[in-house]
Amino acid sequence: MKLATARIDDAGTVATVLVDHADATSVTGRIVERCDLGTLLAKTPGDLTAKVDTGLRRDGEELTMDPADLLPLIPRPGKALCVGLNYREHIVEMGHPVPDHPTLFAKFATALTGPFAEVTVPENLAEKADYEGELVVVIGRRLPGAVGGASEDEARDAIAGYAVGNDFSQRDWQYRTQQWLQGKNLDASSGLGPWLTTDVDPVAEDAVLRTWVNGELRQEHSTADLVFKPVDLVRYISEFTTLEPGDVIITGTPEGVGAGSDRFLADGDEVTVEIDGLGSVKTTVRIG
Amino acid sequence: MKLATARIDDAGTVATVLVDHADATSVTGRIVERCDLGTLLAKTPGDLTAKVDTGLRRDGEELTMDPADLLPLIPRPGKALCVGLNYREHIVEMGHPVPDHPTLFAKFATALTGPFAEVTVPENLAEKADYEGELVVVIGRRLPGAVGGASEDEARDAIAGYAVGNDFSQRDWQYRTQQWLQGKNLDASSGLGPWLTTDVDPVAEDAVLRTWVNGELRQEHSTADLVFKPVDLVRYISEFTTLEPGDVIITGTPEGVGAGSDRFLADGDEVTVEIDGLGSVKTTVRIG
Repeated sequence: MKLATARIDDAGTVATVLVDHADATSVTGRIVERCDLGTLLAKTPGDLTAKVDTGLRRDGEELTMDPADLLPLIPRPGKALCVGLNYREHIVEMGHPVPDHPTLFAKFATALTGPFAEVTVPENLAEKADYEGELVVVIGRRLPGAVGGASEDEARDAIAGYAVGNDFSQRDWQYRTQQWLQGKNLDASSGLGPWLTTDVDPVAEDAVLRTWVNGELRQEHSTADLVFKPVDLVRYISEFTTLEPGDVIITGTPEGVGAGSDRFLADGDEVTVEIDGLGSVKTTVRIG
Repeated sequence: MKLATARIDDAGTVATVLVDHADATSVTGRIVERCDLGTLLAKTPGDLTAKVDTGLRRDGEELTMDPADLLPLIPRPGKALCVGLNYREHIVEMGHPVPDHPTLFAKFATALTGPFAEVTVPENLAEKADYEGELVVVIGRRLPGAVGGASEDEARDAIAGYAVGNDFSQRDWQYRTQQWLQGKNLDASSGLGPWLTTDVDPVAEDAVLRTWVNGELRQEHSTADLVFKPVDLVRYISEFTTLEPGDVIITGTPEGVGAGSDRFLADGDEVTVEIDGLGSVKTTVRIG
């Protein structure tokens, strides 16, 4: 099952859409409910399949959309936790030691954008603009913070599904201080989508993540190589904080980011991140 | 004007309350609106004084509360931005160089708690539990991300007022990786309140922040000594992200945290943070 958040009319109505078919120019589907996916996930009771079945019976209007009508999959997550260093080669590329624990930082909701969006980078943040293709975990049910963290089964059950993200970064800002936040939170910069896929386990299926810049392949790595895998991340995070429906974990990027070869993004660049079985997000860069 | 967010009945109804009088055992005030202060700030039009006047006319019910009924001032901020190193002596105490830019990290809404709350610290996070008394800036109006950041006047106008915070920390977790997030986000740990004060400018008035642990004075420092002051912080942050009503900036702590003298918090400890003119928040620590 693939569920997207989309703008479904000119008035800006937002809905969760069950995607039936998609190609480069159009997305067809049926309306599940007139709210974004994060809001739908937070509704109780928690079983997503039941919610979708009920929604389709109550609404179910068919529609065909432009991919640009897709919104950030979860427009206002309570938490978007990013993992900084989670593929061995990328850790080396960025000059860091392999960590014992996941390196976590936050992306605010304001930094998210749709899966096929233009990203405007102001001149003063544009010197070292960079992409990071990432596997995204979407939390589907509340997982209270617990001593020792959630069990493996609890963690697995808390994952609603997976999506694709571009953890858009400004490297000069990122390294201004010890903390990376200000280089990771440019308004409407990080594509999240294109939809939630509930029936693919990318790590178990050895799904490959690929990133292209203007058609040139820059990242190509199996998500199975994650140092801290989705279930590990959920378990670890649940040691100190409650995860809630609609929270997202942006799991880290493999080698091949621009910073690794000093090739940063320029006006007009198109960055496409794709993960086998999960679809792709494309970001078009506008400077200034 | 002092505005608190409080639980006003046994059913858990939440309201913004105009505080008329408060002492150690009771808070009296009038109901402005049956929503938390963050929600009230986000309502349009934006003038807070007008919203309060209207609310008092429509509702205005008088009530007396236990201080424990006060909730986190903003229970679900879109962003809670913390500043890591912002008083010179504390920077030295923590072994860091004085930074050129504010060191920013995030606290999730789940990590906030009321101004007079018990904080439960699980055993595995309790080894180096610590306090940080802090001045908190509450954003009252939307400030779009802008090239070069907001002007000084725009930044000043965006500040609704000030409050007191305890940026509760787990030092062992904080320093597990390069990023501090996992040591700053324990569920329901960081007191925020007791209320929004709109008519005090703590930095201009040289307001002193004091922190006591079990009655022993541990921190005592003028907020006027902040390296990056509230208006500076708002201007800087607005260079890369949009600030929204109800966002908070937790501006950093002066010297005197437990980590500076290897004295961490134990079961039953009471931590009180007070800022002249803004009131105090008290955290009681429960381990396990």
